Amino acid sequence: MSDYIDIAPEVAEAFAAGKPVVALESTIISHGMPYPQNLETARAVEQDVRDNGAIPATIAVIGGRCKIGLSPEELEYFAKGTDILKLSRRDIPYCLAKKRDGATTVSATMILAEKAGIRVFATGGIGGVHRDLAGNFDVSADLTELGKTSVAVVCAGAKAILDIPKTLEHLETLGVPVIAYGTDEFPAFYSVESGQKAPLRLDTPEELAAFLSSKWEFGLEGGAVIGNPPEADKALAREAIEGAIEDALIEAKEKGIQGRDVTPFLLARVTELTKGKSLEANIALVRNNARLGAKIAAAMVD
Amino acid sequence: MSDYIDIAPEVAEAFAAGKPVVALESTIISHGMPYPQNLETARAVEQDVRDNGAIPATIAVIGGRCKIGLSPEELEYFAKGTDILKLSRRDIPYCLAKKRDGATTVSATMILAEKAGIRVFATGGIGGVHRDLAGNFDVSADLTELGKTSVAVVCAGAKAILDIPKTLEHLETLGVPVIAYGTDEFPAFYSVESGQKAPLRLDTPEELAAFLSSKWEFGLEGGAVIGNPPEADKALAREAIEGAIEDALIEAKEKGIQGRDVTPFLLARVTELTKGKSLEANIALVRNNARLGAKIAAAMVD
Amino acid sequence: MSDYIDIAPEVAEAFAAGKPVVALESTIISHGMPYPQNLETARAVEQDVRDNGAIPATIAVIGGRCKIGLSPEELEYFAKGTDILKLSRRDIPYCLAKKRDGATTVSATMILAEKAGIRVFATGGIGGVHRDLAGNFDVSADLTELGKTSVAVVCAGAKAILDIPKTLEHLETLGVPVIAYGTDEFPAFYSVESGQKAPLRLDTPEELAAFLSSKWEFGLEGGAVIGNPPEADKALAREAIEGAIEDALIEAKEKGIQGRDVTPFLLARVTELTKGKSLEANIALVRNNARLGAKIAAAMVD
Ligand SMILES: [Mn+2]
Ligand SMILES: [Mn+2]
Ligand SMILES: [Mn+2]
Repeated sequence: MSDYIDIAPEVAEAFAAGKPVVALESTIISHGMPYPQNLETARAVEQDVRDNGAIPATIAVIGGRCKIGLSPEELEYFAKGTDILKLSRRDIPYCLAKKRDGATTVSATMILAEKAGIRVFATGGIGGVHRDLAGNFDVSADLTELGKTSVAVVCAGAKAILDIPKTLEHLETLGVPVIAYGTDEFPAFYSVESGQKAPLRLDTPEELAAFLSSKWEFGLEGGAVIGNPPEADKALAREAIEGAIEDALIEAKEKGIQGRDVTPFLLARVTELTKGKSLEANIALVRNNARLGAKIAAAMVD
Repeated sequence: MSDYIDIAPEVAEAFAAGKPVVALESTIISHGMPYPQNLETARAVEQDVRDNGAIPATIAVIGGRCKIGLSPEELEYFAKGTDILKLSRRDIPYCLAKKRDGATTVSATMILAEKAGIRVFATGGIGGVHRDLAGNFDVSADLTELGKTSVAVVCAGAKAILDIPKTLEHLETLGVPVIAYGTDEFPAFYSVESGQKAPLRLDTPEELAAFLSSKWEFGLEGGAVIGNPPEADKALAREAIEGAIEDALIEAKEKGIQGRDVTPFLLARVTELTKGKSLEANIALVRNNARLGAKIAAAMVD
Repeated sequence: MSDYIDIAPEVAEAFAAGKPVVALESTIISHGMPYPQNLETARAVEQDVRDNGAIPATIAVIGGRCKIGLSPEELEYFAKGTDILKLSRRDIPYCLAKKRDGATTVSATMILAEKAGIRVFATGGIGGVHRDLAGNFDVSADLTELGKTSVAVVCAGAKAILDIPKTLEHLETLGVPVIAYGTDEFPAFYSVESGQKAPLRLDTPEELAAFLSSKWEFGLEGGAVIGNPPEADKALAREAIEGAIEDALIEAKEKGIQGRDVTPFLLARVTELTKGKSLEANIALVRNNARLGAKIAAAMVD
């Protein structure tokens, strides 16, 4: 294990006992939701993992140390923090060298999970290919990471602000399996329907676990995207949310928002424009993914 | 060797005796040509390899087992099969975990060839950057594979339905050598001329073998594209084929064909539109590539 | 060490004594500047490295042998040479197998530096995403190399002929850290200002060294871009140079210049159009980067 990594006691015990562990990201806490919903959700998600047979390991960097599992106080610190870096792969060395605090996005969480030996990671949605690709060539580092780091990401698809067909094409280009869980369609984050068929479909946590085991045993490095549709009664209709997203995208462009600031800006504006409905749906889908992640991790141990 | 791999007796003997082996793909049999031309071609191609001093290893997955070399019965099964998966890198674990049958595309054949220790692979054409890149961001996983998997692909260039200049640019971006054999121009699959100069030119199998040995001995992982122009008397004039390709592309767009279905649809339509001439040219060029592949593999052993 | 590599005596002594070494590229000599300015600059740059506490290792291929450090005669040979290949990653095996002479671009220099154990490399500017990406999909192999090869490139940003915002986006996609040295803005090669904020800022060679050590100690393979702004009194105003660049780009398109010929053509035309001012600025910035590279390499040894 790297010198830079601290394993929380509960996670270390799970490793020693061969119990399933699910990685969780911290950017969703510090940059993805407002307080206090972020803290409530982070706690609920950890409990969802426990209730479904696995141990949660929320991942973050504190004072330049990589934390695999946060204490309740640390969770609260990230929920209230105002000076927390947002870490993608490229930003990790800065946070380590400067001994700063950083919240991990999907790519950084995958890296730290892999280094700690955790194979299943549950989150809301992955990054992807941004709309107006020709104009900005903005493609999330999450996709590159999925092409090389061997962690499965359980999500409700790509964040809704993205170009879903181009994101699926790019994942194919990178050789990343994309599996819809219990449905033929790749989910659209807030919505069940995306209009895009997923390349693969599997129907049980056991099938997903067998798929992942075959992949890595055979020596096919890299991640996998498990697209878990949001629960129908908590999802938003695609046409209902799409207008808010388009308005937010226009606004971001007018304000010249770029790089790592794009996604948090858009998510915050969509929450305002939907009067909080998008936030409610977001919380529900993250919890739904945590439950599935725990079941997959448990099935991989069996 | 991975637990998932079965080496056919003839191939195992060749390995033991240090004889040259050429990998061949199976998607061209199951999804690339109609029956019975596909079976005739598969047999002829294997014979072409033998006649030029190497042992053929047609690669496929049967019942979740990776086969390096197929028996005559297995070859026929793939030629007639209707429930055979088309496997790119991302699809392999599904086929293994479900114990299904799968035909390997260029990317999957490269992966299995490398795992079996085969360095030369002959096929028709590689995938590449699709036309209308800005509209669909559709770039074949074959290019990604060429960037990391150490197998040389002997082909008549990229499939003619693709954007050849952009495919060449992307191979440069990925650090993949592209060599025209015995000509300055990169071939255009059905046609000798593409209008694009190849980055490198070599004129004998021995020169190609020396190039590949230098690459891998020096530790430059990844593949190489050896562009072998189709025989002049069996090639089609570029302007003759281009109209059929454009019509097929428009049709595919209208029908909303996407992902792994695009290439088989276009190839079948072009065959219809050219009244079979494109199929004849395709068969001839695959055989031409098999002969060159065998000579390169033999030169690498010497 | 690979059988293909020769370490110059002065560099071998530095390795043995644990002294800092800075890699320098040779394409800037053979294809990047006219004679005799190229030779004067190559000599001055080596002296700049020495004056700042490190040993220079100019990298090239001679007769198929990879040279880590050139003698004065070899430096002159590259400055006057007319039959010298321009080597990107994909071209190296050709040069080795044919026992030719080749000048290394950024990607090839990174590869040879890494194989020789050199971690810091100073040059003028990196390649990047070309303008008109949608039209030509032309993205430099330097960016791919930065995504996987563990060498820090000290530069004045990306070459000015490129699309700087898209280059920064693609580096983010690939997980490559981009650090502006002593400024918030990513430099624009000839100019201090690019209009683009750099993702990270560090202010001393010691901070840069600590960043790089954290990155590689933690096991995050791949390079880093250290954007060193040109000295204010030797830089050109962005609007002054931009007109010449745009004229040169139009001319290159009209003449159908492609692939590895694009950058040398544009640099030569910009020099003509600016009546040599761009060449003067180029020389000054390369020397400025060599000085910073030496300081970083020295700080990494301490
Ligand atoms: Mn981005
Ligand atoms: Mn595709
Ligand atoms: Mn290029």
